[in-house]
Amino acid sequence: MAPFTSKDFTQRMERAVAQAGEAGLTGLLVTPGPDLTYFTGYRPTAITERLTALVLDRDHEPRLIVPVLERPDAAAAPGAPAVTLSGWADGADPYATAARLLDPVGRYAISDSAWALHLLGLQQALPGTSYTSMTATLPMLRAVKDPDEVERLAAAGAAADAAYLDILGVPFAGRTERAVGADLAHLLREHGHSQVDFTVVGSGPNGANPHHEMGDRVIQRGDMVVLDFGGLKDGYGSDTTRTVHVGAPTAEELEIFDVVRRAQQAAFEAVRPGVTCQEIDRTARRVIEADGYGEYFIHRTGHGIGLTTHEPPYVVEGERQALLPGMCFSIEPGVYLPGRLGIRIEDIVTVTETGGRRLNNTPRDLHIVA
Amino acid sequence: MAPFTSKDFTQRMERAVAQAGEAGLTGLLVTPGPDLTYFTGYRPTAITERLTALVLDRDHEPRLIVPVLERPDAAAAPGAPAVTLSGWADGADPYATAARLLDPVGRYAISDSAWALHLLGLQQALPGTSYTSMTATLPMLRAVKDPDEVERLAAAGAAADAAYLDILGVPFAGRTERAVGADLAHLLREHGHSQVDFTVVGSGPNGANPHHEMGDRVIQRGDMVVLDFGGLKDGYGSDTTRTVHVGAPTAEELEIFDVVRRAQQAAFEAVRPGVTCQEIDRTARRVIEADGYGEYFIHRTGHGIGLTTHEPPYVVEGERQALLPGMCFSIEPGVYLPGRLGIRIEDIVTVTETGGRRLNNTPRDLHIVA
Repeated sequence: MAPFTSKDFTQRMERAVAQAGEAGLTGLLVTPGPDLTYFTGYRPTAITERLTALVLDRDHEPRLIVPVLERPDAAAAPGAPAVTLSGWADGADPYATAARLLDPVGRYAISDSAWALHLLGLQQALPGTSYTSMTATLPMLRAVKDPDEVERLAAAGAAADAAYLDILGVPFAGRTERAVGADLAHLLREHGHSQVDFTVVGSGPNGANPHHEMGDRVIQRGDMVVLDFGGLKDGYGSDTTRTVHVGAPTAEELEIFDVVRRAQQAAFEAVRPGVTCQEIDRTARRVIEADGYGEYFIHRTGHGIGLTTHEPPYVVEGERQALLPGMCFSIEPGVYLPGRLGIRIEDIVTVTETGGRRLNNTPRDLHIVA
Repeated sequence: MAPFTSKDFTQRMERAVAQAGEAGLTGLLVTPGPDLTYFTGYRPTAITERLTALVLDRDHEPRLIVPVLERPDAAAAPGAPAVTLSGWADGADPYATAARLLDPVGRYAISDSAWALHLLGLQQALPGTSYTSMTATLPMLRAVKDPDEVERLAAAGAAADAAYLDILGVPFAGRTERAVGADLAHLLREHGHSQVDFTVVGSGPNGANPHHEMGDRVIQRGDMVVLDFGGLKDGYGSDTTRTVHVGAPTAEELEIFDVVRRAQQAAFEAVRPGVTCQEIDRTARRVIEADGYGEYFIHRTGHGIGLTTHEPPYVVEGERQALLPGMCFSIEPGVYLPGRLGIRIEDIVTVTETGGRRLNNTPRDLHIVA
């Protein structure tokens, strides 16, 4: 895929400034992480205590506050041609530099993951300014993906799917979760991931903890095993979950699996422009509640994905944002019986003009592994 | 080395609460990252938009706000026995949970790397509270290492030293920086690092950019090559730099190398309890300025190290903190001639009762590689 160009980055910055204006904001303060990558392609080697921040507003060209010793890296970023760099040297006060670039009574949206250290520094240096989080004020800034981004997410999804199909062939019983997780990580890289972010292998009772990653438990015949894995390919995220069974399942296991599968299917079928995020969550939840497992579905139905694996839109009760074509998010209902087992099925879905399109396409039936 | 125990963590939390009281604070808000690891041993799989925060104050036992689906992981942390967990579920307002645990007019130190999203959420939910960064108010919280921590840092330093001695045997000329960097990463792991954080290989003109990591430049005979590398071993950081030369150096290169070596030596010899951080910086800078290269030393002299590779104390002009026994930090002066070369020498040093002790001990002479 062709890399994003300076023109792509410039258009994103212009659109963000317009959106900020509509939201009654003076501008945006963008710090290293997915927001800065989105607007400039610049990814500092490390995110540290040294302030780096892109200032976007209506009255100026984009300006980047950057430690002088990182200036050459910033200048080499693909979005840099449209950005004026403002360096500050060790020993100087970076908030004084920022104070010269910000409106002293401005109202800014700041990146969610900006360090509190920096926000407090700005609040102190410019007591007349006010701040709001990017997600609170401009939640949809990166939520609607352009076709090139959807294509990258689809490629990441296809690579994760290929890793899943391969993992079905490895032995499970008698090996530790960690060993299977290492296989998964290896397969993700083999299928083109540059970074592996998580490889959950939750076997038997460990599956009941949705965020259990993997441990030294030896997988047994008779275990349900939750496999939830993803990372970055060409800068965009993958995230898919399938639950497999080692040997023959019981009738109860099949029943719960079927509830989760139907919930995931119902939520997917509800996806179309105009439906709210919370309605997708409710759709999945209704299926699980109807079968009496509502209290065991202990998390939201999904989260947006793009340059990160958790970003708006969040598919959760209370989120009234309507779906728009180009949004990409997970649909991942689950049932967790404490001390016994977990079952979760997750696909990334993108909103089309008329409905939803899955970016994960491996079978959603219960697969029996060895 | 024996793992830290619940008692170790409890003592750290108690000491922090006492220090916060002395600083006029109500308490501390500790978020995932090195601070939370230091106080509880708890490292969430990912640091995300879901609020996790440890509340430490004088009037209550330690309390941890945690997403319910991460509660089992938190409960398994070695410091958890002394901590009460307060779970919040997806769809609920985590800042409302926090509001019930915080003093509505309290003044709290918050972890530097806490997300702006969370700080803004707290400021809005509790308008009577005020916040200050951990580094601004309690900079010395983790800066003085206990003997077990110094021992871990020394082991990490020795492992990095072993990797450096090994890398001297690989070919440099005709290979890319990236290839040598991959060798370095491999060697760090081979010598016991669980994580490699950076492997700078700055050859020829690339060495003049202190934060250049590595690229596709093919290393040439006649190049200076800056090697700056480190990561984590047993949870504690390594960070050392040596500059080597491919083939015979010029008289000018030898001269500049010698300036940097003498600056590093002078700064090391100045280390003893009671001397300020800025005085260490000035000591290195004076040597380099005296030889006419002052304008080419474009960064501070060093930074603290522990659970992270950048933390207080910072060895920089303006930092009047006096050195205390048990502090650990880098001494890493450098000279950078734009477009030509860079030279830097870096050791981690710990403050003893009477002076300094280097935790990196490979030769500081100019080594000629092939």
